[in-house]
Amino acid sequence: MARPTALSGFPEWLPADQIVQQQVIETIRRTYELNGFTPITTRSVEPRSQLAGDADANKEIYLLRRINAAQGDEDADPERQLGLHFDLTVPLARYVVENAGKLTFPFRRYQIQPAWRGERPQEGRFREFIQADIDVVGDGELPFHYDIEMPLVVGEALSALPVPAVRIHANNRKLAEGFYRGLGLADVPAALREVDKLDKIGPDGVSRTLVEIAGASDAQAKACLQLAEISSDDLSFVDQVRSLGVTDPMLDEGLDELAQIVDAAREHTPGLVRADLRIARGLDYYTGSIYETFLVGHEDVGSIASGGRYDNLASVGERRYPGVGMSVGVTRLLSRVFGARLVEASRSVPTAVLIALVDEDSRPAADRLARTFRQRGIATEVAPSAAKFGKQIRYADRRGIPYVWFSGRDDEPHQVKDIRSGEQVDADPETWTPPVADAKPEIRPT
Amino acid sequence: MARPTALSGFPEWLPADQIVQQQVIETIRRTYELNGFTPITTRSVEPRSQLAGDADANKEIYLLRRINAAQGDEDADPERQLGLHFDLTVPLARYVVENAGKLTFPFRRYQIQPAWRGERPQEGRFREFIQADIDVVGDGELPFHYDIEMPLVVGEALSALPVPAVRIHANNRKLAEGFYRGLGLADVPAALREVDKLDKIGPDGVSRTLVEIAGASDAQAKACLQLAEISSDDLSFVDQVRSLGVTDPMLDEGLDELAQIVDAAREHTPGLVRADLRIARGLDYYTGSIYETFLVGHEDVGSIASGGRYDNLASVGERRYPGVGMSVGVTRLLSRVFGARLVEASRSVPTAVLIALVDEDSRPAADRLARTFRQRGIATEVAPSAAKFGKQIRYADRRGIPYVWFSGRDDEPHQVKDIRSGEQVDADPETWTPPVADAKPEIRPT
Repeated sequence: MARPTALSGFPEWLPADQIVQQQVIETIRRTYELNGFTPITTRSVEPRSQLAGDADANKEIYLLRRINAAQGDEDADPERQLGLHFDLTVPLARYVVENAGKLTFPFRRYQIQPAWRGERPQEGRFREFIQADIDVVGDGELPFHYDIEMPLVVGEALSALPVPAVRIHANNRKLAEGFYRGLGLADVPAALREVDKLDKIGPDGVSRTLVEIAGASDAQAKACLQLAEISSDDLSFVDQVRSLGVTDPMLDEGLDELAQIVDAAREHTPGLVRADLRIARGLDYYTGSIYETFLVGHEDVGSIASGGRYDNLASVGERRYPGVGMSVGVTRLLSRVFGARLVEASRSVPTAVLIALVDEDSRPAADRLARTFRQRGIATEVAPSAAKFGKQIRYADRRGIPYVWFSGRDDEPHQVKDIRSGEQVDADPETWTPPVADAKPEIRPT
Repeated sequence: MARPTALSGFPEWLPADQIVQQQVIETIRRTYELNGFTPITTRSVEPRSQLAGDADANKEIYLLRRINAAQGDEDADPERQLGLHFDLTVPLARYVVENAGKLTFPFRRYQIQPAWRGERPQEGRFREFIQADIDVVGDGELPFHYDIEMPLVVGEALSALPVPAVRIHANNRKLAEGFYRGLGLADVPAALREVDKLDKIGPDGVSRTLVEIAGASDAQAKACLQLAEISSDDLSFVDQVRSLGVTDPMLDEGLDELAQIVDAAREHTPGLVRADLRIARGLDYYTGSIYETFLVGHEDVGSIASGGRYDNLASVGERRYPGVGMSVGVTRLLSRVFGARLVEASRSVPTAVLIALVDEDSRPAADRLARTFRQRGIATEVAPSAAKFGKQIRYADRRGIPYVWFSGRDDEPHQVKDIRSGEQVDADPETWTPPVADAKPEIRPT
């Protein structure tokens, strides 16, 4: 074949980084399971109608078509055409509705899978990317305490990784909507959409579009921007909002909810969660809490874990399924981790010990020994060939395999060499075990 | 939304079965890592030219097209069009060539990912399915001992699952090709293709097409069928082949290779590997060893782990990368496991203990307790509401959560209830740990 080149937007990693990715996913998975979330994998495809249902054509859905599809085939029919999911929330909503009678609610699930968007690739934005979601879905109702739980679980998962600290910024749709209502804005949804553009077009731009598009007065636009400037690590944001002099029952509800989240997080993990009334992503479709998460010192990569409360994640007829959840952008996180070389793996293979060979005839005995090592949980390889010991040691060294084992002939003792220190000592094949720190590749900050 | 229905060929499982799938994948992953295979995830897409390169249009590749793609966009251009991979071998070959300068050879990798084929769905055949592959790829050459290793590792992985025993049937392209040559057949590749149809059209059919298509005489066709009837758990297949009176150097080589595999497997795991000269899948593209794997008593589902040796997995110019590998069909295996209810999970959630609530005011204390449990590795949930204890216990019961924890008020002792036995005892929140068998959901034969 011609030497292939990378495809923009479809990242792939070299083996040592693949080990980091694997362990990052395992750590997130383990934290989610410790918190009682159950693993779900859904199919990668949904009917086009399900994906494009909310008219958000900007999602850049990838549709599938069989290479041999003929006119009149199902995948030439828009009604039956399939597309790749662009997030894990649409499949969750569909899975819940499809299996509602067989699930137990509240349904706590996690899901770690790729998603696809045909967007123009750029830093932090990919065409194929792995997400690690948690959601809790209720049948009819869902208590607010799950809104408090979400950022704590995600904070726990991300803090368990050898990456810089994270900060979760929280806001609340009711707070913003109540404030705009109390302010007397005529078109509240339009105002929510305009404020969401703050990062793109800046305060002056938003001030202008609030007036032009959302029908705000200059004073109303100014108050909206003042609200968006408020943030705090503690409950002081409540007084700051009150000092703007707007009152509304929905505003009160939003303030109370956000205060509960900040308060609980302060006890659980001080410094993790911050009330930040500028956060507006999804204000137009979330119904209560919203969350965004930044890697300290790497805020420019964007949010690495976002989510919120949907009071109507899914519904069938009168039956409603409210949900609250967050989605960790594993690929976005890793692309920065690898791009800035923040983390490295201690070796590029799982192997802890390489059994050296004196000659090819000793391979069966080495294979038997490898088997007893593996039964003790020690990842083991046998040398690829009975080359000179120096070459066999280089095989281990190039991969970062920490130990090389030399089987004794006849009555000679076996020996094991730590190739990092060069120390070589007698060892009993029946009991030898590497130190816990060497049992599997370690991933660590560089 | 309207209540959605399942999509044929895109299987999804209910939560208890998802737990089985998760643990099956973890067990395979762990076995692969113990054997020193390193994890790789590739992108899900390859250029159309790469996928359709070998003209095997029957693969029913799914091509992607952005929903908003315009004429002239890259994904309307056949040269740049992308498709979903239909196996994990094509991406491996491409990854190896793309990154050859940065990999260490022999390169031992495993890969557990979905693949897609737009085939008509039927028992054991899906449009989206998870594969768990291992391969060893060499740079220029690859010793034969890796051909021996492959079925042993896959046998180890599958034997670690609570499923029926497996038998790996092995054959060798050189054995068949050498035999046909020694027999004097004019068109050996055609003969290989015809014998591959044995399961579909039967011996009479193959006998006929060997004559009509491959140009064999009746005697030659008969000898081909006699060869295909030979099988043995031990080395007796060698004499059976010799007794057919055909001689050829390539036949000798094939016999020797297959004998080495059967011999080593007999020592390693008696009964695992069988020489079966009827196995012909891929005889036309593998260059040496070939393997198929059957679940004892469920042979009708087809091979659940197949593979073989490709002396030319990939090449660039003069540089060749030979490989040998096997691919476990996780979805095919699970579809039978679930369809025949061979395995069940002891619970449908990871949670080992539910902390009951006396009232909502005690939630923060329960959350703190949950946190200390989780720090000790105990998967813990706090009750969704401070309902009557009976209702909280039912919450645990419906999910199979084995323990419910009752926090003592003031100086009262804490208590923990095993909801299976009903036994409730005093317990120390600082030290309590569930028995190892209850730490995570157990998957077991039904």
